[in-house]
Order: sequence, then C-alpha cells, then structure tokens
Amino acid sequence: MGRSFNKVTIIGVGLIGGSLAKVLKANKLAKEIHGAGRSRETLELALKLGVIDHMGQGLVHAVQDAELVVLASPVGSFERIVQELGPHLKKGAILTDVGSVKGGLVAKIEGLLPPGVHYVPAHPIAGKEKSGVAEASEKLFQGAKCILTPTQKTDPVALDAVKSIWIAAGSQVIVMDPETHDHVFAAVSHLPHVAAYAMVCTVAELNAGADNYLNFSGGGFRDFTRIAASSPEMWRDICLMNSKNIVEMIDRYQYALNKIKKAIHREDGERIEKFFRAASDVRKGLK
Amino acid sequence: MGRSFNKVTIIGVGLIGGSLAKVLKANKLAKEIHGAGRSRETLELALKLGVIDHMGQGLVHAVQDAELVVLASPVGSFERIVQELGPHLKKGAILTDVGSVKGGLVAKIEGLLPPGVHYVPAHPIAGKEKSGVAEASEKLFQGAKCILTPTQKTDPVALDAVKSIWIAAGSQVIVMDPETHDHVFAAVSHLPHVAAYAMVCTVAELNAGADNYLNFSGGGFRDFTRIAASSPEMWRDICLMNSKNIVEMIDRYQYALNKIKKAIHREDGERIEKFFRAASDVRKGLK
Repeated sequence: MGRSFNKVTIIGVGLIGGSLAKVLKANKLAKEIHGAGRSRETLELALKLGVIDHMGQGLVHAVQDAELVVLASPVGSFERIVQELGPHLKKGAILTDVGSVKGGLVAKIEGLLPPGVHYVPAHPIAGKEKSGVAEASEKLFQGAKCILTPTQKTDPVALDAVKSIWIAAGSQVIVMDPETHDHVFAAVSHLPHVAAYAMVCTVAELNAGADNYLNFSGGGFRDFTRIAASSPEMWRDICLMNSKNIVEMIDRYQYALNKIKKAIHREDGERIEKFFRAASDVRKGLK
Repeated sequence: MGRSFNKVTIIGVGLIGGSLAKVLKANKLAKEIHGAGRSRETLELALKLGVIDHMGQGLVHAVQDAELVVLASPVGSFERIVQELGPHLKKGAILTDVGSVKGGLVAKIEGLLPPGVHYVPAHPIAGKEKSGVAEASEKLFQGAKCILTPTQKTDPVALDAVKSIWIAAGSQVIVMDPETHDHVFAAVSHLPHVAAYAMVCTVAELNAGADNYLNFSGGGFRDFTRIAASSPEMWRDICLMNSKNIVEMIDRYQYALNKIKKAIHREDGERIEKFFRAASDVRKGLK
C-alpha cells in the first residue's frame, strides 16, 4: 500500500472530494481528514456523515500542518485558492487536485507554490448524475481512469504517493502531459458539453403553435442533452481555461457537420450511409 | 373502446410492430393478426411468442381481406411496399404506419392507394435501447406521445379508429399536419442523430500516441452519442426523406455553435455563462 498521511485536507467536500475522503479512510491512508470549502452546510453534513473528521475555520487554518491537500472545488477556483493557501503549506506537503483542466493551469499553480511543496495534478474520470457529499462513495472511482499530468518539476516520490491513492481507489492510472490532457478532454468531454448546450438552445427557440418543439422530444434527445443540465459556472470556467483547444474541437465538429449536411443537401444516400456506418461501428465498439 | 378488426396485418414485426400487435390483442381490438416482412426468422419468432397468429406467404397474400394494415418496417421501405400491396387492399381497409417521416411521404402513399382504402399516418414516439420482437411489450407506448398526421383526404372515421388504438395503447394522441410533423422531428430527433454521428466521427479521428481519444471518454460522451449506434440504413432513409428540414436544422445548430465558439474564442465569460445557463435551465425542465 501507499504512504499514509497524518493530516489530509480536502477543499470542496462534494461528490468527488467526499468519495476521495472515503477512499483514504477505507484504505487507512489518512489518520485525520479536514474539510474546507465555501459552504458551511456541506461541511457540516460531511462531518455528520463521518466523511471528514474536522471542519476548517478558513482555508489557511485548514491546511496548517497538512501532509496532503486536495483541491476538489470547481476548477475555476483553484488559482485563487492556491494563491491564498500556498504560503501556508508545510514544507514537504503534497498538493493534488481533481480538476478537469490541466495545461496552463498546472504551470500557474506550480508558480504559486513555495519551494519544497509538491504539486501532483490529477483528473479522475468519474462522476454520476447526482452530486453532493451525500452521494459520496469509496466505490465511485472503481474501474474508472485517473489521469495524472506531471511536469518536469513534479517530484517523483510525490507522484508515486498520489498514484498509490488512485490505485487504492480502484482506478486505472494513466500518465499524460498536461497539454495532451487538455487536447484529449476538449474532444471527449468539453466539446460534447458545448454541443449539448447548443442543441438545447437550437431546439428551444422553435415553437409549433402553443407547443415548444421540446415537448415532442423523446428518449434520444434526452440522452443526448442530459449533460446540458450541468453547472453553467463550472463549464464557463472550463471553456475559459481550455479555450484554444475547445475552439479547435468546435471547428473540427463543424467540419464533420458540414460534410454530412452537404451529403444530405445533395441527397447522396451512399455518402450519408457511409458516414453513419463509420460512426455507428465506432460507437458500438464503446462499452 | 374502439372498433375491433377481424384481420390485422402487421408488416415488419419488430419492437414497434410487435408491441402494437400485443396492444391489439390485450385490448381485444383484433380477432387475428397476420405478420409479414423480409425476415422469415423474425416472423417465426413472433409466431412462437404468440405475438402474431399467422405468417404471410408474401405481402399480397398477407394483406388479403385485412381490415387494418400497419406499416412497421423501416420508413424507407414504405413507398415500395405500398406500390406492391396497394392494389390488393380490400375496399374499406385502413392502412396506417408507425414511421418517423411524414410530409411528402404521406402524399406519395395517398397517391398509391385505390379509392375506398383509407390511410391514417401515425408516429408513436417510443422505443428503447433494444430492438426486435422479443422485446415487444403492450406497455411500450404507455405514457408516450403518438402523433397522427391526417390530410384533407383522410377519412374521419378511419382517423377515429386509429386514434382509439393509440388511446388503448396508453398513448397521448396529438394531431398535427404532416409538414409540421417533419419540421418538429427534424429538430428533436433527426438533428440529434446527425449531430451524434458527426460527434463520433470527429473524435474517432484523433489519437494520442497509440490511444484513440475515445478511450478516454466518460459517461457524458457515451450518453451523448448513444443514438449514434442506431441503424445507418434507417437514418440514411430518414435524411433522404426529410432532407430540406434536416439541412435547415443543421444550419440552425451551426449558428448556435458559432455563437458559443465566438464567445469562447473571445474568452467572454459572461456571454458563455448566459448561453449555458439558458440551455441548462431549459434542459432541467425536461423530465
């Protein structure tokens, strides 16, 4: 098993932060877990549920003497939080996160940390429909991928310690550089969210008499647009932090839409079927 | 209850056709049900499961003396089938269908029928992940919408008879003209399918070393693209039969994508959030 930490502080004790706290406890990787975050209500619930052992009075107090600090708040808050807590981290402490954007953000965070504090960027590919600490489970990450994106500055011992945590969580750990991570997730996660938001906006504008077209949508449309119910603030931040890659992916997507649009406009059945068959074969290959 | 039919013929005894057969039986709306279709295997299974009472030897034989004929094969086959069976339909017979394209197709079918045969176009908004007659259930249509698209030529008595069947199935019947139907379903069903196919093609082209980007997709991407596993032939036919509306919807969708792309490119957080919030609020309102 991996290294055990005396004091762990989790900033943002929601579904992901809470589940990670449960993993640390279930695997005896943490002696005591402190929770911090904006919502006192959430922290009180996490305490009541036994997910954390202590509630911090402010960020600075919460991270004092912590050997491991986990950023599990919305990714748009990381820079501000690290600016505030950076100078108060213990020498030798490990800072990690669960954010879905890496790239430039990793370099920014590295630049904000005092020497001797080790940052290990991580991104577990997990989640479920419901959010919040009440839904937290030590099983959330089982069988899921977790991407670690170390840089040349990353301490190898700290990297191994964080890797051990995710292996204990039952995840498949994959190491990738931060730039590749952001390009990959612009395609497989950020683009589909933008596309779902755009789809809902497109259809919501249309009305047949008194009925909005959305009233006629079936299961397919609902599946397709489920992710459009996600937090607008979180996705705004992701779009701002990964703008270049997301714009590239929207361009690529529009190129594909143009190809199929032209074939439909020309009523070229052969080309339409070829395009659909290629996609359908690929999609069937995904579990 | 509605009119009871002595002989009903269902052409294409899959999930939808089989479920409708079960509805007719469960509500004693049919004395005997004949099945017809391309696949002998499917018909034999439907017979074994008691979904149909007889297997037709060819279309013409199957529809002889039928009082109700249901087209439940892929919508691309309707015109050819009606060309073949039209002259053999009994005077006073009702022809209906479960196809997802109406518009011009309705006029074509009306033009192929002899006088005294009544066509009532229908489109039940139902389906599930699995297809095939083994999945058929008289409960499939409960609580779902069923759109009827009569024209000026539609016989009001025949319309009522078909309406009664769908009410017996537990559906909410909505009447709409064929052109409006095709515009609405281009938006809520056909566009999302095209968009999902385009999304899979876009991402499948990208690789990180030996790994295809798709290997990093999570639940959101899978939900979003589930409908891209649908039958390429069926969706080719729908695109060909509703091309004008689908091209219009792709244009509208690209316009929305452009708006959000520009906001992301400019890193205009306020505009991005406004756009996402509008979509998120609408989406949360859908069940």
